[in-house]
Amino acid sequence: MNKITILIHCKDRPNIIASITNFIAINGGNIVYIDQHVDREQDIFFIRLESEFSSADFSVDAFKTLFKNALVEKFNMKWRIYSSDRKPKMAIFVSKYDHCLYDILGRYNSGELHLEIPFIISNHNDLKPIADSFKIPFYHIPVTKDTKEDAEQKQLELLEKFNVNFIVLARYMQIVSSKLISKYTNKIINIHHSFLPAFVGAKPYHSAHKRGVKIIGSTSHYVTEELDAGPIIEQDVAYVSHTHNIEDLIAKGRDLEKIVLANAIKLHTNRKVMVYNNKTVIFS
Amino acid sequence: MNKITILIHCKDRPNIIASITNFIAINGGNIVYIDQHVDREQDIFFIRLESEFSSADFSVDAFKTLFKNALVEKFNMKWRIYSSDRKPKMAIFVSKYDHCLYDILGRYNSGELHLEIPFIISNHNDLKPIADSFKIPFYHIPVTKDTKEDAEQKQLELLEKFNVNFIVLARYMQIVSSKLISKYTNKIINIHHSFLPAFVGAKPYHSAHKRGVKIIGSTSHYVTEELDAGPIIEQDVAYVSHTHNIEDLIAKGRDLEKIVLANAIKLHTNRKVMVYNNKTVIFS
Amino acid sequence: MNKITILIHCKDRPNIIASITNFIAINGGNIVYIDQHVDREQDIFFIRLESEFSSADFSVDAFKTLFKNALVEKFNMKWRIYSSDRKPKMAIFVSKYDHCLYDILGRYNSGELHLEIPFIISNHNDLKPIADSFKIPFYHIPVTKDTKEDAEQKQLELLEKFNVNFIVLARYMQIVSSKLISKYTNKIINIHHSFLPAFVGAKPYHSAHKRGVKIIGSTSHYVTEELDAGPIIEQDVAYVSHTHNIEDLIAKGRDLEKIVLANAIKLHTNRKVMVYNNKTVIFS
Amino acid sequence: MNKITILIHCKDRPNIIASITNFIAINGGNIVYIDQHVDREQDIFFIRLESEFSSADFSVDAFKTLFKNALVEKFNMKWRIYSSDRKPKMAIFVSKYDHCLYDILGRYNSGELHLEIPFIISNHNDLKPIADSFKIPFYHIPVTKDTKEDAEQKQLELLEKFNVNFIVLARYMQIVSSKLISKYTNKIINIHHSFLPAFVGAKPYHSAHKRGVKIIGSTSHYVTEELDAGPIIEQDVAYVSHTHNIEDLIAKGRDLEKIVLANAIKLHTNRKVMVYNNKTVIFS
Repeated sequence: MNKITILIHCKDRPNIIASITNFIAINGGNIVYIDQHVDREQDIFFIRLESEFSSADFSVDAFKTLFKNALVEKFNMKWRIYSSDRKPKMAIFVSKYDHCLYDILGRYNSGELHLEIPFIISNHNDLKPIADSFKIPFYHIPVTKDTKEDAEQKQLELLEKFNVNFIVLARYMQIVSSKLISKYTNKIINIHHSFLPAFVGAKPYHSAHKRGVKIIGSTSHYVTEELDAGPIIEQDVAYVSHTHNIEDLIAKGRDLEKIVLANAIKLHTNRKVMVYNNKTVIFS
Repeated sequence: MNKITILIHCKDRPNIIASITNFIAINGGNIVYIDQHVDREQDIFFIRLESEFSSADFSVDAFKTLFKNALVEKFNMKWRIYSSDRKPKMAIFVSKYDHCLYDILGRYNSGELHLEIPFIISNHNDLKPIADSFKIPFYHIPVTKDTKEDAEQKQLELLEKFNVNFIVLARYMQIVSSKLISKYTNKIINIHHSFLPAFVGAKPYHSAHKRGVKIIGSTSHYVTEELDAGPIIEQDVAYVSHTHNIEDLIAKGRDLEKIVLANAIKLHTNRKVMVYNNKTVIFS
Repeated sequence: MNKITILIHCKDRPNIIASITNFIAINGGNIVYIDQHVDREQDIFFIRLESEFSSADFSVDAFKTLFKNALVEKFNMKWRIYSSDRKPKMAIFVSKYDHCLYDILGRYNSGELHLEIPFIISNHNDLKPIADSFKIPFYHIPVTKDTKEDAEQKQLELLEKFNVNFIVLARYMQIVSSKLISKYTNKIINIHHSFLPAFVGAKPYHSAHKRGVKIIGSTSHYVTEELDAGPIIEQDVAYVSHTHNIEDLIAKGRDLEKIVLANAIKLHTNRKVMVYNNKTVIFS
Repeated sequence: MNKITILIHCKDRPNIIASITNFIAINGGNIVYIDQHVDREQDIFFIRLESEFSSADFSVDAFKTLFKNALVEKFNMKWRIYSSDRKPKMAIFVSKYDHCLYDILGRYNSGELHLEIPFIISNHNDLKPIADSFKIPFYHIPVTKDTKEDAEQKQLELLEKFNVNFIVLARYMQIVSSKLISKYTNKIINIHHSFLPAFVGAKPYHSAHKRGVKIIGSTSHYVTEELDAGPIIEQDVAYVSHTHNIEDLIAKGRDLEKIVLANAIKLHTNRKVMVYNNKTVIFS
């Protein structure tokens, strides 16, 4: 049984759902999941479908061509079609904090994540033992003012060599370059340790403590040129009080960061996220 | 513009989505909302659609007939079709607690609820002033051991006279009769003041306090013959601690009850709920 | 039985707790509640005590004098002592939104709030019927550019005439003057419809929608000169998604606003809040 | 600087707080933390204090003796005094699930937990590699009907040999014997994968799915003779919907279990928990 996932967005138009579902039926597909959304302010239509094809000689590439000819131009669609037998490849970038890395690798090991991790890149060597214990290749690529361009070049080479599909910044403490962002648009997932847009930038727990908030948060978003301003994928919060000092906020925040980042990775991997106007549509 | 909402469930079968969407398109409808769910254990398919028909001579009844002939028998569907220009009529049953009543009427007054409230029934006279201040007819129907059957008869007459579509038990402290339940199957919404199935029955806050739970809850569900065991529509919780005595739990619980019941009413009114196997599918 | 509540903060010093508890014991008091906090960064000590005095000739004023002489100067304390038989008087300021007003008055009516409401002030006449139905005096004091000073004068006269202790801005859509703020420092409670410090200022739900956040919030804080920047008393949040348009956010937000504001009022009324460095200590 | 933590509970009596604080002051201690609670239904008084003693020749044992003579008999106290320089020793019992083990060891490694882990016991060999990678001794003690008593004996010997203070059942899939429970009363922490008291016993996620709940939970409690009925230390919940099948519930539940268990361990380790009447007082 072949299974594909289709993501489409385009200007909203009458009969668009019927046109798509009809096209799939005619081509031998059985729709097993459909969910849609219309942004009525912007008049944009979004749809996510999963369809099964029982024919032995089904080819995703052939289907893509048919789909393109029949529908894409007619409705001026932005579209992606994924075959569900292909696991996406995710590179992990880390620095010195280990909690998100432990969490991701623990989930990976227990089979919770439907993806492959070809390697981990870090600007420090501290977390190599963790990578080793999980038997994931670890590349130490130091980043200094002078070596920044070189480092980036090495990163890009590794990403290309291993056909990486998306990148997770698991508390990677370096600004990612424009070149990387433009090559991996909406494919670099960051975890920010605050409830964005509150406390953009460095040291958000310090800012939260100073402001005396009663709730702290964590935000996973796609990386864009503007710092901490990319499309939000997932957020969560935890209650705090005056009894929590900065270290307590950081400790509580670690738990948020782990879960929020893991959920964002799952949503991305399961093709549940669509991006437009710097926002996301998250299908259930 | 005519707008209808269609709810269907049936055994899962190939091409069912395409068949439905195609039928709507052929009959001049434009689908503006579609969401579906498959219970893979039970092999049951659920779908909710909203469709607009621009034709001046569109008739819901005619469409229902066409739909029935074309699809219902073929797929052995359980189905409902609602015209969105008809506001459902909701009767409110109360006893002496006023918080849910205030909350519902406040929302009703501010236009938050798309429904009509033909009347309030109570087995006590205490809340009549509230009904009066909101200008909703209030019927005092006392219930004692001896008058129970009579009271029930009066309730049924009022419900029929005003063509009531569904009933909300806003902390109504009487067991509803089998007769009423069978006449309003999945149309009587209750609010239970615990996180069901924990603390079924009377005095759940007392039980929660005794057990020393750290979280209390509230559950809105459809009323069935078995006490507090009907299909759950909505639940929510609040954190508590040893510092909360029973009165504190009751006070905190009131806020939960109000919001959980209001959400359940909205979900029901917006035709977002489907019931099967004593569970609900809640569309977003 | 006389009961008092004591709130103290001062520089942290050895033996301060023993000094206070000893003083109370010597003067015939039995401590029934004690909670304390030390801000170790600022080296500030906070304590909240409730103490009962069984003596028939106990006088709060006499106790205050004794307390002042024995401890206040020695430890350079900032302190307040409240007699628990005095209900604080709360004025409500509203404009046109009714949800917070309904909520507060509903709680007031059911005995949930230990306070008196001498009057409601509004710059519009729209909510007078609600005030009337709850039998609370309602003063319509319009505010325009030209009448602002006059209006403020009328407000102050009413506040003084009725010996108001604190003010709640229940979605009052006017900037409160410096004069009022300085007269009621840390005694004016506002409800802001966002998770501060995110989305300061007007139309926070519009900003939240534009940013595509997955969680919205509400914040109750004391009013200070800087807009939406005063000490935070209480915050809460609700999960949202791309399916929620601005109206949905506003509706969901109303529920948050009601509960967050009600909790802030209760904390203030029960003398649970201490303010320092533009932050709060909230005792449980 | 010597620091001790004192936990006391006894019948509530006048002047008890002053008596304790005075005793500490007289003996050269400076109280740096005090929190108290009174269960007014049961008339029980609880207090937790942290006190610092600067004297070079301070001895915890001598202080305990003084304390006992001065206060314990007079007030009929149940009391414990801990020196904060002693890290408690925690044994971990596991079976085949690895998520809680990974989580605990990750936190342990990063210095988040103030305890020592002398060893891990398991009735299976599956998780030995994880223990090895964290360099914690791992004892494989199989449990079958016939070997149950022997196994228990081996467990007890290890616990005694290493002076273990408390035990964590990190998804240990065996019923713990009465002998172990009576030796470690309120010192065996279990994680149950439901919101107790809902879904006691095995397969709670299956029961939750069948009941159609909208929220799942996790509960950490001390182990008592009655299954899943011991004093609750910590609970948390997560929202679910009809779209979640049993596997999804289990996956979501894993995240809850990890955090709830970790929080319970921290509360226990930091001497924040007092147990009475099968409930807990949790100090902040």
